[in-house]
Amino acid sequence: MLRFECDYGEGAAQPVLDLLQKTNLEQTSGYGEDAYCAAAADKIRALCDAPDAAVHFFVGATQANLTVIDAALKPWQGVLCAETGHIHVHETGSIEATGHKCLALPAREGKITAQQVRDAVAAHRANPSHEHEVQPGMVYISNPTEVGTLYTKEELTALSAACYELGLYLFVDGARMAYGLMSPRNDLSLPDYAALCDVFYLGGTKCGALFGEAVVITNDDLKPDFRYALKQHGGMLAKGRLLGLQFLALLDGEDGSGSSPYFALAAEADRQALQIRDAFAAKGLAAQYDAPANQQFFVLPDAWYDALAARYAMSPMGKPDARHTAVRFCTSWATRPEAVAQLLADIAAL
Amino acid sequence: MLRFECDYGEGAAQPVLDLLQKTNLEQTSGYGEDAYCAAAADKIRALCDAPDAAVHFFVGATQANLTVIDAALKPWQGVLCAETGHIHVHETGSIEATGHKCLALPAREGKITAQQVRDAVAAHRANPSHEHEVQPGMVYISNPTEVGTLYTKEELTALSAACYELGLYLFVDGARMAYGLMSPRNDLSLPDYAALCDVFYLGGTKCGALFGEAVVITNDDLKPDFRYALKQHGGMLAKGRLLGLQFLALLDGEDGSGSSPYFALAAEADRQALQIRDAFAAKGLAAQYDAPANQQFFVLPDAWYDALAARYAMSPMGKPDARHTAVRFCTSWATRPEAVAQLLADIAAL
Amino acid sequence: MLRFECDYGEGAAQPVLDLLQKTNLEQTSGYGEDAYCAAAADKIRALCDAPDAAVHFFVGATQANLTVIDAALKPWQGVLCAETGHIHVHETGSIEATGHKCLALPAREGKITAQQVRDAVAAHRANPSHEHEVQPGMVYISNPTEVGTLYTKEELTALSAACYELGLYLFVDGARMAYGLMSPRNDLSLPDYAALCDVFYLGGTKCGALFGEAVVITNDDLKPDFRYALKQHGGMLAKGRLLGLQFLALLDGEDGSGSSPYFALAAEADRQALQIRDAFAAKGLAAQYDAPANQQFFVLPDAWYDALAARYAMSPMGKPDARHTAVRFCTSWATRPEAVAQLLADIAAL
Amino acid sequence: MLRFECDYGEGAAQPVLDLLQKTNLEQTSGYGEDAYCAAAADKIRALCDAPDAAVHFFVGATQANLTVIDAALKPWQGVLCAETGHIHVHETGSIEATGHKCLALPAREGKITAQQVRDAVAAHRANPSHEHEVQPGMVYISNPTEVGTLYTKEELTALSAACYELGLYLFVDGARMAYGLMSPRNDLSLPDYAALCDVFYLGGTKCGALFGEAVVITNDDLKPDFRYALKQHGGMLAKGRLLGLQFLALLDGEDGSGSSPYFALAAEADRQALQIRDAFAAKGLAAQYDAPANQQFFVLPDAWYDALAARYAMSPMGKPDARHTAVRFCTSWATRPEAVAQLLADIAAL
Repeated sequence: MLRFECDYGEGAAQPVLDLLQKTNLEQTSGYGEDAYCAAAADKIRALCDAPDAAVHFFVGATQANLTVIDAALKPWQGVLCAETGHIHVHETGSIEATGHKCLALPAREGKITAQQVRDAVAAHRANPSHEHEVQPGMVYISNPTEVGTLYTKEELTALSAACYELGLYLFVDGARMAYGLMSPRNDLSLPDYAALCDVFYLGGTKCGALFGEAVVITNDDLKPDFRYALKQHGGMLAKGRLLGLQFLALLDGEDGSGSSPYFALAAEADRQALQIRDAFAAKGLAAQYDAPANQQFFVLPDAWYDALAARYAMSPMGKPDARHTAVRFCTSWATRPEAVAQLLADIAAL
Repeated sequence: MLRFECDYGEGAAQPVLDLLQKTNLEQTSGYGEDAYCAAAADKIRALCDAPDAAVHFFVGATQANLTVIDAALKPWQGVLCAETGHIHVHETGSIEATGHKCLALPAREGKITAQQVRDAVAAHRANPSHEHEVQPGMVYISNPTEVGTLYTKEELTALSAACYELGLYLFVDGARMAYGLMSPRNDLSLPDYAALCDVFYLGGTKCGALFGEAVVITNDDLKPDFRYALKQHGGMLAKGRLLGLQFLALLDGEDGSGSSPYFALAAEADRQALQIRDAFAAKGLAAQYDAPANQQFFVLPDAWYDALAARYAMSPMGKPDARHTAVRFCTSWATRPEAVAQLLADIAAL
Repeated sequence: MLRFECDYGEGAAQPVLDLLQKTNLEQTSGYGEDAYCAAAADKIRALCDAPDAAVHFFVGATQANLTVIDAALKPWQGVLCAETGHIHVHETGSIEATGHKCLALPAREGKITAQQVRDAVAAHRANPSHEHEVQPGMVYISNPTEVGTLYTKEELTALSAACYELGLYLFVDGARMAYGLMSPRNDLSLPDYAALCDVFYLGGTKCGALFGEAVVITNDDLKPDFRYALKQHGGMLAKGRLLGLQFLALLDGEDGSGSSPYFALAAEADRQALQIRDAFAAKGLAAQYDAPANQQFFVLPDAWYDALAARYAMSPMGKPDARHTAVRFCTSWATRPEAVAQLLADIAAL
Repeated sequence: MLRFECDYGEGAAQPVLDLLQKTNLEQTSGYGEDAYCAAAADKIRALCDAPDAAVHFFVGATQANLTVIDAALKPWQGVLCAETGHIHVHETGSIEATGHKCLALPAREGKITAQQVRDAVAAHRANPSHEHEVQPGMVYISNPTEVGTLYTKEELTALSAACYELGLYLFVDGARMAYGLMSPRNDLSLPDYAALCDVFYLGGTKCGALFGEAVVITNDDLKPDFRYALKQHGGMLAKGRLLGLQFLALLDGEDGSGSSPYFALAAEADRQALQIRDAFAAKGLAAQYDAPANQQFFVLPDAWYDALAARYAMSPMGKPDARHTAVRFCTSWATRPEAVAQLLADIAAL
């Protein structure tokens, strides 16, 4: 069975393991207060062109999401997000468990727009009973989105402007940040994220690390005492250096050209995903979404699904009708060329 | 200005004030552990034909909702409700503040169906990633609904059966219970509620009391230690007898025929509301919803709205387009016949 | 049975009921947005000499406490309080249910000192692992305290100075505010409270109202959007005017001389409580605490306890040893002179 | 600088890294639903002689604690613990953030007794106002404790009996389980823990893993749907197999004799710690606690402290007076014999 079901099926890029092994018996302070975390944070600040940003490392994305949102919002505030947003549908109510409501907006291609945000906030503020409603306090988006699509720089800039004018925080879940940045269709850079968002993260778990997300906070209001929040939600790793080390390994030598493992591996995964997309297109099957990165969604005729499922693990996404099955194919930093080649051949032979 | 905007614009039915005055200087235990609360609970148990039910008095409906839901659910469970449900859109995220997600379902005429509940639970359980989703643990409905419509006995029975089979609690918000029960279209009784629901309440605030909701718990699993929950959320009134006294006054002499103030006043309010409905119908304007109780919703041409707004307070419900205004008219236990007469005349003269 | 067990055993001072009756059928807006609440808030601002204070009315003290504390604190902050503090031991963990820890300090006579606050904060900040501890964010005291004692102006000023310097909020639970202010030993005024505290309240429930607490917020940081918090925790009374009306009735004619029902009734209750204190002292039994207001605590020999318990309800406070019973005697706005006279005689006859 | 400040200053035991490297490019399901987690769980069940136990892997101890406690308790329940308990003083209020109060009991040598539990519960239940207090729902202890001491089998059996009779859960934080089990003074086995506790864990982070705690649930009431809780609190690791793999490596070949890396490394660390203890004793300085495992606490004269601090990192534990400094020395699976030898020599030379 070859697995294309997700981008967290293997361990870590080899430089990560090598650095963990090399430093294994060094003694450092715990809880992220070590030189490796400091160096990794510096590296990320430099890549983001954000010398004053605070950088905090989390083990996983759900924990990063719930901690950032809980730390940022007043008790009566909620977070605007796409109805397909990961925090709304795929984290077992983790945001609500911290007391905050997800204010879901209809999504097109997994995305929400600045106009939707403006309309939602305007409707709230115009409502004479607004005190009986949850107050929007933040916008959460994922980029790439949960359906693999990308926000453009224009779209993110518009969201940023809306949030700034309305007094909302803009938070970007970057669990697949590397795949987004390396997509041939991407027009955003890390400095753009730092300039446009109040807080965002560079995902490690899905992009070559064993685990780890690097949260970058650019808004000064969100910086004080953030480590209390990290600890309170169980997110402060005892051997915190493991997080710093992994980002150092992944970003080693990065100069903005995408040459480090983090970016180079993601670029290759994007290429592979687009080959899969093209292979289906050649068979007359268009992808479900305009998704130019490492996740590709298709509605397969069941005969095709059955043929492929015998050899490949895909993510099942439900059955839209009795004769089709929706699936996601994912490539990753670990996807082997020969696995892709075989899949492409098998698609061609359908 | 004559007010038809809500059913909580006046104080209380006179027998309520009389009984409060009459008993004012009596000394009783606090926190609901007095003979009046005990007698009121007995009275309600008798009317519900539910001798083993637990009865707890709350000051208000939001507090009753959040306390019942928080007490009933596991941390990872959420509550299925209509997208128009009061807990979802009109309580400032009070349910989320206790850690639980509202799982909103599309509503028709303010109602959800047993089939929707079955489908939602089946979809959850069939999802291989169900542990990443909030688990449905309860169904919340309001009857009358937030748009004034009524669940039939058949509909409530179907919901009850679905919940029972699926292992969910069924909770009915009865903030306007009296208006529902006295509607000419109602086919439900208090014993029906007791038999079909795990927990429900008889609203007092909107039905003749100064304040107060009587929560009736019939499911044994929800009974133990409920008073801890009541206290923890600030719902345990120091002078708890005030709640028992009010329900005693409102239900005085009730024998199931609707002769007590609680029911007689509601029946009159329903009649008045239907007169208003008929008056608009006579002008060619149908009500928005098939709502046979004390709330009536209309989309008024702005000329009509302006004419009426000069003399009457209505609840504004937004502007569906540039030339219409949506409004709610409410009658209540306190609506004066002459106010209704004047309104009817003014509608006729539009 | 004559009841001296608490100060919430009767209904309300007659002017409260009279005003509720007189205004009963008036139609007003709900949720506290009516002219009576506005007038009561103005009256309280005037009495506090705090023209810019925000005033919000709650039904009860537990709800006021949890709402104020949750609205004020960051998620990782806790509230310093006496180990005997009501929020710590008598509210079923209501503060923790909002996510915040009570940081209990040893109490002397039910009080904590500015030095204790300074020491606790200094210890926290000096701890290299302070991010692993709850951060102190507020000081909560009750005045009168839970054991009937009073903070002096000097003590409250010192607490206020410590909180200001350390960046903590100072919150005073004034559930028995009237009894405190009218104590012969009191040297604080409402303007003092307004000047020294960030937020405090004037209790109504125990001081002549059916129910109600008037929260006064003087710190601008705590004012915005407070009504969202009020609603979210179920504390926004539908017929909000009932709260405004009661405070108007209680404070009617008040000019700072204590002539209104609120203060005059409390003054009399204090006098009665001190008579009870003196009666025991005449029998050689000193009170447990230096408590110059309406609550008096004694450790009674069991023979005395048994004799009194046959005719009087007292609050049992546990058995310090096999032969004594600790009790609280409470007077209130409703305590009848003849009941006190009888008790005094019975004490003298012990 | 040689570090004796904690037991999480290095990476992982070499077999852990080796197995991670060896399996690195295997493709498995995520979220702990892989064969390695299944095998590790089986291994742990076998070692615990608890074939029906549920085993769940967490990244860290704070997260394990908050998730277990939140999943087990009703909203109004709290957790009895030592005043020195990790959850009470060293996790930034993580338990309160889930809504539950820590009910701290005075500790002797870091331990609480069955009698204290019985007394606390009896006092709660006897209190006529018990509904105004948090209800005890669980007992939490750490073994080894936060001050390095050990519960005996007799003590744990007594706690277990008390909990069983009173209807409380017994939860043992085993962050340092291996050090406890290998102490020369230990008389408990893993099957004892499984038989006596409702839930406990085998710590990996401090005992040779990069990270990871294996939670063992033996009480059937706590088993259903636990993975929802795991996910909701952000504790479900995407590459869950990393946790299973680490425990497999640490427990490799274990047959109950302590031969696996997990136990053998801990045994050596205990020996080293006791050598340090003996070295101070030889200088006339007794340890603070009767702590027979890998943590040793001393109150050092400042001259000694200064001399040692120049070469060794210790955990500072405050200054009990102007001339002494309290410290903790920790050994671990990674402590090198030559580091201990040097420390012993330096102590001898003080």
